[in-house]
Amino acid sequence: MGDVKGRTYVYKNSLEWEEERKGLLSSGEKPGFMVATPPEFKGHPNIWSPEDLFVASVNACIMTTFFHYAERNKLQFLSYKSNAEGILQFVGNKFIFSEIKIVPLIVVGDSSDADKARELIGVSEKNCLISNSIKSRVSIIPEIKITG
Amino acid sequence: MGDVKGRTYVYKNSLEWEEERKGLLSSGEKPGFMVATPPEFKGHPNIWSPEDLFVASVNACIMTTFFHYAERNKLQFLSYKSNAEGILQFVGNKFIFSEIKIVPLIVVGDSSDADKARELIGVSEKNCLISNSIKSRVSIIPEIKITG
Repeated sequence: MGDVKGRTYVYKNSLEWEEERKGLLSSGEKPGFMVATPPEFKGHPNIWSPEDLFVASVNACIMTTFFHYAERNKLQFLSYKSNAEGILQFVGNKFIFSEIKIVPLIVVGDSSDADKARELIGVSEKNCLISNSIKSRVSIIPEIKITG
Repeated sequence: MGDVKGRTYVYKNSLEWEEERKGLLSSGEKPGFMVATPPEFKGHPNIWSPEDLFVASVNACIMTTFFHYAERNKLQFLSYKSNAEGILQFVGNKFIFSEIKIVPLIVVGDSSDADKARELIGVSEKNCLISNSIKSRVSIIPEIKITG
């Protein structure tokens, strides 16, 4: 990424309450979508919650960081799919996300690419800027498959 | 919320690479949407990035936590709109979100509700479960307006 020292980036978004416990999330030209309190906290089903967005940001950061290292290391992967699970717990006297588990399934063409993919997903976790910014423990359990 | 001690909740989502540096984010019956590396890291414009989702999760958590305290304290508010800004900085030898600034604009009907809204937005920040889970400094700069 060249000389990154001293670089600063700003990410902006807006949220506007609509009704009950729902609001519209927007950010520039990106497609807006509804967010709401989740059902378990007296909210609404089938709408993205703050909790979902938090866990999704970690899942997505591992993926985009992996893309970066895959390109830099000339790793060809055939597919990448990743399941994430965030554990919200009442610890002390407050709720916190204690752990986020990420299970990336990466398909590659041969065993040397499999080794490389396994190494690079580890590097991606260490260098994910969202992992760096949170207190939750992030566990990555990669599954690497080779197609014939 | 009754007796919350010992409670645990799990939030799940899936991400599937589509092409270039883009993937489709999904979670149960919620409407899926694309996420991608942002343009400043060799990605794509006008698509939600992991960085955006992270900042949005904080903005949304402050809003939903405010809903909770407003109901509990019988505060009637007429509108709620909130702008968020996340500052990503290269610190030491890595990028981290050093600060997230949230500017909620809350409209209420009279000055006693204005005082209550100002107090409850502070309480919401202290009790937002995403704030509790991140290292970034979260600053709330509320603007409370009274309609005649």
